[in-house]
Amino acid sequence: MKDSIGLGLMGLGTVGGGVLEVLTQKAEELARRVDCPLVLKKILVRDLGKQRPPATPTRILTSDFRELLNDPDIDILMEVIGGETDAFDFMRQGLLGGKHIVTANKEVIAKHGAELMRLAARQGLDIRHEASVGGGIPLINPFKEDLAANRISAILAIINGTTNYIVTRMAEDNMDFAAALGEAQRLGYAEPDPANDVEGIDAAYKLAILATLAFRTEIRPENIYHEGISRLSARDFRYARELGYAIKLLAIAKEENDAIEVRVHPAFIPENLLLAKVGGVFNAIQVEGDLTGPVIFYGRGAGALPTASAVIADVVHIAQNVRLGLRPKPQVLFSSSKNIMPIEQIQTRYYMRMTIDDHPGVLAQISRILGDHSISIASVIQKGADECSQSAEIMIMTHPALESAVRQALQETRALPVVREVSNLIRVEG
Amino acid sequence: MKDSIGLGLMGLGTVGGGVLEVLTQKAEELARRVDCPLVLKKILVRDLGKQRPPATPTRILTSDFRELLNDPDIDILMEVIGGETDAFDFMRQGLLGGKHIVTANKEVIAKHGAELMRLAARQGLDIRHEASVGGGIPLINPFKEDLAANRISAILAIINGTTNYIVTRMAEDNMDFAAALGEAQRLGYAEPDPANDVEGIDAAYKLAILATLAFRTEIRPENIYHEGISRLSARDFRYARELGYAIKLLAIAKEENDAIEVRVHPAFIPENLLLAKVGGVFNAIQVEGDLTGPVIFYGRGAGALPTASAVIADVVHIAQNVRLGLRPKPQVLFSSSKNIMPIEQIQTRYYMRMTIDDHPGVLAQISRILGDHSISIASVIQKGADECSQSAEIMIMTHPALESAVRQALQETRALPVVREVSNLIRVEG
Repeated sequence: MKDSIGLGLMGLGTVGGGVLEVLTQKAEELARRVDCPLVLKKILVRDLGKQRPPATPTRILTSDFRELLNDPDIDILMEVIGGETDAFDFMRQGLLGGKHIVTANKEVIAKHGAELMRLAARQGLDIRHEASVGGGIPLINPFKEDLAANRISAILAIINGTTNYIVTRMAEDNMDFAAALGEAQRLGYAEPDPANDVEGIDAAYKLAILATLAFRTEIRPENIYHEGISRLSARDFRYARELGYAIKLLAIAKEENDAIEVRVHPAFIPENLLLAKVGGVFNAIQVEGDLTGPVIFYGRGAGALPTASAVIADVVHIAQNVRLGLRPKPQVLFSSSKNIMPIEQIQTRYYMRMTIDDHPGVLAQISRILGDHSISIASVIQKGADECSQSAEIMIMTHPALESAVRQALQETRALPVVREVSNLIRVEG
Repeated sequence: MKDSIGLGLMGLGTVGGGVLEVLTQKAEELARRVDCPLVLKKILVRDLGKQRPPATPTRILTSDFRELLNDPDIDILMEVIGGETDAFDFMRQGLLGGKHIVTANKEVIAKHGAELMRLAARQGLDIRHEASVGGGIPLINPFKEDLAANRISAILAIINGTTNYIVTRMAEDNMDFAAALGEAQRLGYAEPDPANDVEGIDAAYKLAILATLAFRTEIRPENIYHEGISRLSARDFRYARELGYAIKLLAIAKEENDAIEVRVHPAFIPENLLLAKVGGVFNAIQVEGDLTGPVIFYGRGAGALPTASAVIADVVHIAQNVRLGLRPKPQVLFSSSKNIMPIEQIQTRYYMRMTIDDHPGVLAQISRILGDHSISIASVIQKGADECSQSAEIMIMTHPALESAVRQALQETRALPVVREVSNLIRVEG
């Protein structure tokens, strides 16, 4: 029986700093859980010369990955570098070199998870990634184990804290997108280049991971439709509220009759849903199981300590096995690939906002086009004609309609001389 | 390697029927997960002569526990009988006879969990009880594993669906307690004898289980203060709403400076908290971890299929180990017992409602008594004097105060000639 478990930490940014802090401060409690000490052997950093906090154990820093790979005392590599290429390469080499892997990397798991899991299984090693989605919220293990008896039909999730902060500010304080983004950046919730979050790319990675586990088929991120929040305006939030809705950036996955829908976009959701109340940087993931019914997991989806909580839980899990000489359980591997429905074929309800000439008969022209495409109107609100420009704003909520029909209809509507602008089109869920 | 895993089911009531249904309908999918078939060998029932649904495999029914205990092909016993004595006895004998245990029994786990876990550990067997709290919501495994790196400082939970249904109806439709209870009984959400749910006993069992895991010390249900919902009136809900609060039956556990508070009682909670929005038979468990911050788990806390979901997940977990010949990981065992604070020593805020003579100076008398006990008033509302009886109703919200002081003050208040009735005292949380 091993008398200590050796760890290698790759990355010493925000998350890596959190992991280091927890390993140090909770060393005694963690040793009790594993029944022997967890010893941090090496930390991989890019720049050895960089100024570090005083408590950093500088003598175990290295910029050479091979020092971790070739250290026979390292049992588990923790990857918190982020990004794709280096991280993926290190994890693959780590597995080939006999190291278990714990990672917080959503991009690598979304793009290369299946390959890494297969490699780990061949090597008799474990790879765990609880921190890759939802920060400290337990999700991956519950999906893999606790919900195992369920057929999951749907996931509706708020899984990007940055955008949820922005839409919360837009909703609560009538801010416009640019101002809310600027504030999020000042508070450190958004990156200087916010595209990954704001365009829904980060959420698409996370959705790929969850949908793969839920539907037991490999869902690749490039097959997930994504649309960001930058076109939302304060007016959309105001109208949503009037209609009894909230607007959230939702990650949606559904399976019906072996066809899968996976998409990330802003959506109207009824304001009485619990998801509608999830504010600020918080995440919430709603899963619909055939046995459980709806289950929701809620918490902080990012941050140094919540992410470290998930990384350390995975480390403890593997370390207990290493200590006892147990091989990891084989992971359920996914090979068959099910059909992913193109976005044009989905059916949902839509909210449309447009600026029109304030003349009689305009609504009739628009209604006719919608009707021609089998789009049925659920409600219409017309707002404050602008006397000066002789224009008015209308909002239309539709009954369920085919996405391709809606797109075609909007193109024709846009071409009407009486329509000045089609300002926004937002899908409605829940 | 075993080529099938044998199961014994004890109990064929609502939950047992659900487990049987899932084992039958999902046999193929479960076999794929475990990598060999799960074979139900015997079902223990009390009354062999009872009428059963047509699909019941009557030839494996028995009323003799020894037939399960002595069947060498049974690896795992599933206990869904409920109640204390028989269930506990069967589980203990099962472990002594070499069977792994999966149970949905909150009462036995709350009262005898530590003993059963120690016995299982000595026998090299597993005992799992995901279904004992929160039905199909993943909770026990997340507490044991995913949140393992956290020091948990508080749990605030709605963990009894029956009472949450009743308080939801009282809040939304101004029903009184008796009418809401009657409706819950007609719908099958409440038992003919509802005391276990309505008096908070069921919630106290569940809280004992969660608090034991959270604080890593044995919390016995008899040390949990519990108070039911039968004294709540429609007026309390109306006033709560006016003051910006909801009323929920909360299970509360807190640890501060090595002193533990554990209690179940109705509580005012701010209406903007997510817990305040949890309606009907749903459960929600909020956990405060030092790393994660708040995490909430939400879903159906009872019912045949949600409970079966949790039972089957535990069965799959054990069956995978049995299939591979892996011993279960040793459970973290709890021996040291921390101090549980008596209810009289807690400090919280209070809402009081009383009927008083409609004279000047009455509030001054009451305020003086409260002040004498160092209870400071946060707000007062006085309501519609009844001209005929010359009485009025007042509601007082306090700042944090000591429970024993509040009780003493109320006793003195009650003795004032100008006070006709102290109608309710409800603690305020969140």
